[in-house]
Amino acid sequence: MRCEVVAVGTELLLGQVVDTNSAWIGDRLALAGIDCHFRTTVGDNQARIASALRIALDRADAVIVCGGLGPTTDDISREAIAEALGVTLVRDLPMVERIRELFQARRREMAPSNARQADRVDGATFIPQERGTAPGLICPVGDKVVYAVPGVPYEMTEMVERAVLPDLKRRLGPSAVILSRMLRTWGMPESTLGEMVAGRIEALEERSNPTIAFLASGIEGLKVRITAKASTEAEATAMLDSEEAELRAVLGDVVFGIDDQSMERVVAGLLVERGLTLGVAESLTGGLVGSRLAEAEGASAWFRGSIVCYDSKVKFGLLDVPEGPVVSAGAAEAMARGACKALGSDAGVSVTGVAGPARQEDQPVGTVFMAVALNGKVESAEAHFPGNRQHIRQFSTISVLDMLRKRLLASPASADG
Amino acid sequence: MRCEVVAVGTELLLGQVVDTNSAWIGDRLALAGIDCHFRTTVGDNQARIASALRIALDRADAVIVCGGLGPTTDDISREAIAEALGVTLVRDLPMVERIRELFQARRREMAPSNARQADRVDGATFIPQERGTAPGLICPVGDKVVYAVPGVPYEMTEMVERAVLPDLKRRLGPSAVILSRMLRTWGMPESTLGEMVAGRIEALEERSNPTIAFLASGIEGLKVRITAKASTEAEATAMLDSEEAELRAVLGDVVFGIDDQSMERVVAGLLVERGLTLGVAESLTGGLVGSRLAEAEGASAWFRGSIVCYDSKVKFGLLDVPEGPVVSAGAAEAMARGACKALGSDAGVSVTGVAGPARQEDQPVGTVFMAVALNGKVESAEAHFPGNRQHIRQFSTISVLDMLRKRLLASPASADG
Repeated sequence: MRCEVVAVGTELLLGQVVDTNSAWIGDRLALAGIDCHFRTTVGDNQARIASALRIALDRADAVIVCGGLGPTTDDISREAIAEALGVTLVRDLPMVERIRELFQARRREMAPSNARQADRVDGATFIPQERGTAPGLICPVGDKVVYAVPGVPYEMTEMVERAVLPDLKRRLGPSAVILSRMLRTWGMPESTLGEMVAGRIEALEERSNPTIAFLASGIEGLKVRITAKASTEAEATAMLDSEEAELRAVLGDVVFGIDDQSMERVVAGLLVERGLTLGVAESLTGGLVGSRLAEAEGASAWFRGSIVCYDSKVKFGLLDVPEGPVVSAGAAEAMARGACKALGSDAGVSVTGVAGPARQEDQPVGTVFMAVALNGKVESAEAHFPGNRQHIRQFSTISVLDMLRKRLLASPASADG
Repeated sequence: MRCEVVAVGTELLLGQVVDTNSAWIGDRLALAGIDCHFRTTVGDNQARIASALRIALDRADAVIVCGGLGPTTDDISREAIAEALGVTLVRDLPMVERIRELFQARRREMAPSNARQADRVDGATFIPQERGTAPGLICPVGDKVVYAVPGVPYEMTEMVERAVLPDLKRRLGPSAVILSRMLRTWGMPESTLGEMVAGRIEALEERSNPTIAFLASGIEGLKVRITAKASTEAEATAMLDSEEAELRAVLGDVVFGIDDQSMERVVAGLLVERGLTLGVAESLTGGLVGSRLAEAEGASAWFRGSIVCYDSKVKFGLLDVPEGPVVSAGAAEAMARGACKALGSDAGVSVTGVAGPARQEDQPVGTVFMAVALNGKVESAEAHFPGNRQHIRQFSTISVLDMLRKRLLASPASADG
């Protein structure tokens, strides 16, 4: 089964908005075992949307039209679909009432233009709206189908998950199950990681199932994705488990988590297991380490806070760092100890260094010192990161959290917390 | 003149990579006054790339094929272009030598597969490579043209700027200049902003030049983009100036900057003008306020640091916040004063509130108190933000910086710094 996406919006063509919707839909289609050979992006022009839709429908069994369902005059996907299918639009009065109610529930008046969102392509059924005011559409075309969904990501993703993918899977019939798992790593350059995994990729090449792919994701680390295809979910899961074990045997502790286990969630789990609280002292990262830690839900149970000591005087004053060079292992160690003391935490991490654009204390841009204070012992490390100011701050953040992760792993969880 | 982009890469269709290249090219084409009506994304399959190219060439005067110029067997854009144009590929021996030299300069051996990058579509000319090993191609097709450029953004952008856009402009001949300017705003919901600007949009509707577009950008605020078309750059700039003045008259001080003037850069400029240093005390934002401020280059001149007091005890201990409710105007005010004192800064800002998922101190999720301490006077404000944990933290960050901006604007720059 083949499905194409037609992404609608002049702002996409002009580059004012990067099209993340189509990437998201492409990922979901692939995981459902549905082939996607082409994607078309088209502006807010009725004849051109209709033309793109006809070309797509000629090549594929299903087309998802994404965007152009809003209330304003440049939202014309409904009209264009009707034109391409050679049918009319019918205003659905119960749907007009439904939209009016949605506005009333938000204590707002429905603008007359919103009634356009209740126009239904003749022969189509609505996908009820749950997040926005625009309903989606399922338009059968012989044994093919056209879906229309809103372009707002928050509305689109919910509607595709709830209605479009289930409808596609029903049409596809019994089929292979495709599952994937992401191994998340940090501490190894992409090329080294590639060489380490090369043996596994070669071993899998012949039957090409499961497959392995790489993805560099900045502050989120480097991801290794395993995708397995089988006739049942249990079989696909077993394949993922087996390949994960093979990869972990090769990669060791650079794998810090899987799927949505971000570095801060992993660190949070280890701290909670050990009943420890954490304090941070950070300089070049400006608050990024604290901000990442606070993203973990329930952080208030273990995250005390962070002293962002951008100015050296703050390091000397609040953190008891001895006066002298602040881009140094000694300063990082004093900062980690100072964080524990000032914030009243069991463990402390620190990071200080040169984000650029200029050298500092005669150290080149990218030089970073990190330290972890745990169980009365402080350890520090020096790193040299490539890239611009933003890269260096991001790499510093994930690196110091990874250093803490490894220290925590080496310090067993105590029974009494 | 019409130009289309054909983006090549199975990873784009699968959603493993978001296609930022096409957005970048779209932006550049628009600014050059070249229309772009369609974009096609296609996987690494020769017949399908050739088919997409034929469809694009039928609709447009020029096509930019982006990606698929690498050395591996799935890089087949060269073969597909030759197939679509009905010509052969010619291996260019001087280009093979050039690529070999590039490898030698990096002290690496050229793999035999890299010789494929020296294959030229018959009748085409090379665009010399400056950043990677793959040259680009300019393939004339009657009075139309097909360009091929690498998919690596770092290589693509340089080659498009240096060779593709100049060639397109030469073909376009003397043409209109298109310029745009972004007004960046904060403090007004998108619908209210839309209503305020509606009068200007109506006034411009008839001649549709300049035009006005909206863009919601999370922590970056809401953007209003003016685009003007004229026969000279001076004329286009004058149109932008005039429309900017009209919009500013309507919008007032919700406009905090233009183009790349982020909120933190604007605040940085005002602090430097007034010779003031800044300290932050932040709770639910976890370090995001400090992290944004530290993104401004030269921040060390005025940014002292931030006390991330996630735990209430840190508020009471380090910031002298009186024990009691911490989601309150009083706590925010004490935090702003405490930031100045603890960090030794002239001005202080603070933010405390409920990011969720649960209520806190019986206050609903999204309740936020902010304060600014400046010239011995502390002012606070209460806000209620919608959305999830991440939205609330982002909106809190830009809001407290906007509050500081308005206080600074009301406090004149002193002559003695």
